[in-house]
Amino acid sequence: MLHVVILGFGNIGSNLCNALYNSSQVSVIQIFSRNLITLPNNLKSISVTSNISEIKEADVYIIAIPDDAIADFSATLPFNDKLVVHTSGSVPMQAIDEKNRKGVFYPLQTFTKNNLVDFSEIPICIEAEEQTDLKLLKKLGESISKNVTEVSSEDRKTLHLAAVFVNNFVNHMYHISEDILKESNLDFKLLKPLIAETANKIKGLSPEQAQTGPAKRNDLKTIENHLHLLKDSPYKEVYKQMTEAIKKEYLE
Amino acid sequence: MLHVVILGFGNIGSNLCNALYNSSQVSVIQIFSRNLITLPNNLKSISVTSNISEIKEADVYIIAIPDDAIADFSATLPFNDKLVVHTSGSVPMQAIDEKNRKGVFYPLQTFTKNNLVDFSEIPICIEAEEQTDLKLLKKLGESISKNVTEVSSEDRKTLHLAAVFVNNFVNHMYHISEDILKESNLDFKLLKPLIAETANKIKGLSPEQAQTGPAKRNDLKTIENHLHLLKDSPYKEVYKQMTEAIKKEYLE
Repeated sequence: MLHVVILGFGNIGSNLCNALYNSSQVSVIQIFSRNLITLPNNLKSISVTSNISEIKEADVYIIAIPDDAIADFSATLPFNDKLVVHTSGSVPMQAIDEKNRKGVFYPLQTFTKNNLVDFSEIPICIEAEEQTDLKLLKKLGESISKNVTEVSSEDRKTLHLAAVFVNNFVNHMYHISEDILKESNLDFKLLKPLIAETANKIKGLSPEQAQTGPAKRNDLKTIENHLHLLKDSPYKEVYKQMTEAIKKEYLE
Repeated sequence: MLHVVILGFGNIGSNLCNALYNSSQVSVIQIFSRNLITLPNNLKSISVTSNISEIKEADVYIIAIPDDAIADFSATLPFNDKLVVHTSGSVPMQAIDEKNRKGVFYPLQTFTKNNLVDFSEIPICIEAEEQTDLKLLKKLGESISKNVTEVSSEDRKTLHLAAVFVNNFVNHMYHISEDILKESNLDFKLLKPLIAETANKIKGLSPEQAQTGPAKRNDLKTIENHLHLLKDSPYKEVYKQMTEAIKKEYLE
């Protein structure tokens, strides 16, 4: 049985806590949170503290707090030579303070606090300095996911960058289209099946095979009509740039 | 029983044909295609012609060919005063030749020929000049979908524009991230659960509620790291523009 303490209870912390708590191979023995938190009913048996000196002894300490607070926070931990990992895509493992054994446990997914996700398909990217720690993180990851991979800090940075394109930027595309429809009193719901199928297609086709649309087929008339429709819209530049990017990719 | 002839057997034509053929209220009596086509086994009983003078009598003729060929093709049809509709998001209804009754039957979805989609959730946007034709198109739409809406040519244009953002541009984001990973020999598969969840989130949250990432939280350090990683990449400009667009939306 692996004993785990989770440090932080935001989007990642709460999702991770829930998944690990449900694993028979893991015992989440404590949650540390500076802020007052209310545990959901199913997690009520886990002990909670906001006092850093009360943190219990465990096999792994998982830091799940904002990126820029990880380094300083890890330096305040009142113990040595324990395995301390963070969950960030963009922070190097070395950010964790020297006094403990360092590692990373990065679930490549987007989390929202009140929307618990199924971890079984989520890639968990692990990293550690020592082989025994790597083994332990692998066991911890496999207790909740079928997809645990060793990834260096350098590669993890690249993964995080690519994730920004398929998550943050894609979501902003959803926002733009919702806004365009709102202007004409059209319901964003109409696009939801298209949004679902666009993501679904990628399961079986490469993005290149799945690409369609006026830019791909160099349909200048439709592109011109769209630019005309966008008139003084703040989204005109995004349309232009994406159209040029697609044309460059497929027509040059 | 509605008798339908489908003119064209590309991505939309073949998908629509399959859906209508399976409806008990519709009989697809013929497919017209200029190119030689091989029908899949389940559609083998439908008659096929490449001779425009052999087109049979029907209640609705559905043109499913490239946008810029619709007007000319509709003028070559050897009959009058029949209901002729097209399936395009961006072509006005009036593009159909005067000699027949005009209409639109636009399924708001992305289609790939060898990937049949379930029509039941797909919004079908209909338009016609005469009330009886509109009624007929409604009946036709409801035979395959729960979501049939009357949409004007003007609004359909806006829908199509918004669809370009959530489909074509989103898919290009997938392509960019695949390419970024390839450069580092990382597997695009690692991003697939994130792609699925990003689309899935939108079922219950608005894009605004779902937005996360360095641009949204003005995390300048991570943004700078990403731009550094992108060095001379052709995708640097897309990163910059999307980041600025998100910052403008949430921080100003």
